[in-house]
Amino acid sequence: MKFTKMHGTGNDYIYVNGFEEKLENPSEAAVKLSDRRFGIGSDGLILILPSDVADCRMEMFNADGSIGKMCGNGIRCVAKYVYDRGLVKKDVLRVETRSGVKTLQLRVEDGKVASVRVNMGQPELDPEKIPVLFSKDRMVDEEVYTPSGNVWRVTCVSMGNPHAVIFVDDVEGLNLPAIGPEMEKHAMFPERANIEFAQVTGPHEVQMRVWERGSGETLACGTGACACAVASVLTGKADRDVTVHLRGGDLHVFWDPDTDDVYMEGPAAFVFDGTVEI
Amino acid sequence: MKFTKMHGTGNDYIYVNGFEEKLENPSEAAVKLSDRRFGIGSDGLILILPSDVADCRMEMFNADGSIGKMCGNGIRCVAKYVYDRGLVKKDVLRVETRSGVKTLQLRVEDGKVASVRVNMGQPELDPEKIPVLFSKDRMVDEEVYTPSGNVWRVTCVSMGNPHAVIFVDDVEGLNLPAIGPEMEKHAMFPERANIEFAQVTGPHEVQMRVWERGSGETLACGTGACACAVASVLTGKADRDVTVHLRGGDLHVFWDPDTDDVYMEGPAAFVFDGTVEI
Repeated sequence: MKFTKMHGTGNDYIYVNGFEEKLENPSEAAVKLSDRRFGIGSDGLILILPSDVADCRMEMFNADGSIGKMCGNGIRCVAKYVYDRGLVKKDVLRVETRSGVKTLQLRVEDGKVASVRVNMGQPELDPEKIPVLFSKDRMVDEEVYTPSGNVWRVTCVSMGNPHAVIFVDDVEGLNLPAIGPEMEKHAMFPERANIEFAQVTGPHEVQMRVWERGSGETLACGTGACACAVASVLTGKADRDVTVHLRGGDLHVFWDPDTDDVYMEGPAAFVFDGTVEI
Repeated sequence: MKFTKMHGTGNDYIYVNGFEEKLENPSEAAVKLSDRRFGIGSDGLILILPSDVADCRMEMFNADGSIGKMCGNGIRCVAKYVYDRGLVKKDVLRVETRSGVKTLQLRVEDGKVASVRVNMGQPELDPEKIPVLFSKDRMVDEEVYTPSGNVWRVTCVSMGNPHAVIFVDDVEGLNLPAIGPEMEKHAMFPERANIEFAQVTGPHEVQMRVWERGSGETLACGTGACACAVASVLTGKADRDVTVHLRGGDLHVFWDPDTDDVYMEGPAAFVFDGTVEI
């Protein structure tokens, strides 16, 4: 089977052109191929398929074989793949996902996709829907005590998944393996939460590190960057147009005041092409 | 550049056919390509090259760009590569390395290499040459106290690099990140040491986990398996012919009583072929 390895801000997947390749059991293949020593190594497998309702469809399998609904870093790579390889030559691209059809804007330089802008939808602030156990109508910059005695000021946002954003003075100095787990599993989060630690360094600049639910610290999280940008606005720390600096690269986020939509723009990169026996 | 990803008991390298491909700066390429998210992902890069004194030559670069002298898991993959791909069609193969010319015996099944036997040389037991600070002529099953208050019975062997083998009753129950570092950096080891925790389960069976100097716990260590087999004989716990079960797979070790040489036999596997831009 032919495949292509790509990454978006360090979030790396195996991409398979389903217009040409057939994969009998993609969930099983995702588990086997994602292994970083015995397989190809990745965060999962993304099939690029024909769609009846959009320009193409992405079907995503996590490294554990489970089906993923959407991935902001992954969908940018899908856009670069179909444009650069000539499958769909449009700079406004509609991609069918398990979270609905997403519209992407491709920034093309010298005939290649340099970055992709994704409408990530509207943030959800209702505590019940995030979900977070909190009695007011939104949770913005509220004190939270942890079992080990830390006190954090927390802002909660859902971007389809629950995020808790904590602003700090020195994000690089934090020991995330020590402080991340107790926030992720805090009793206030019935479905646990992704925790973003963020340091605002200017009206349009945020430095962020993310502790992902079930994964630990990762290089980048698209929905986390969006949640962080929303929280920066809600707490009055930054403007609606910010660059979020992550360990895996930069993402630009714009929270539209008119439509309430959050737009995320970021890079997508080819790493290598390969063939593997399934 | 074309490359092939292979692994031996989970120790994975990028293999490049230097008979056909030219690589300007292999050390720099090793760093870039070994990255598991932004590159191909591996423990390093191995070039397979023509040799004036043997059937072929391996030149090895670690993931940090440093030159490696030899790797028992890597050289088995070199043997499978040159045989299965028809570069050298011999089942006794001589490979030039920075530790001298190694002679390998290939076990071929259905025209493909199933496993490879490597003469790993003679064990060094002289404490000064291992090196370990110890006053007797060899250190076998001696009590060692650690700063945190653990007491281990330690056997020290060099297989070109220093190993300390510790036999325990339940190797899977050990918390290596807690107990490995203080032994690796124990004051008795002037150049630090690789630490093998081993559980003998029969006269020809050892279960082993390895804490590698500078790397932490790894899936497998060829020289470590050899040191473990030697220590099993020296302490009277097992015979000269043992299977060492590692997290990454099995290695068979035979310590020859006549020549004092240690032979290691194990698998080598293709994972995928690829092309990458350098």
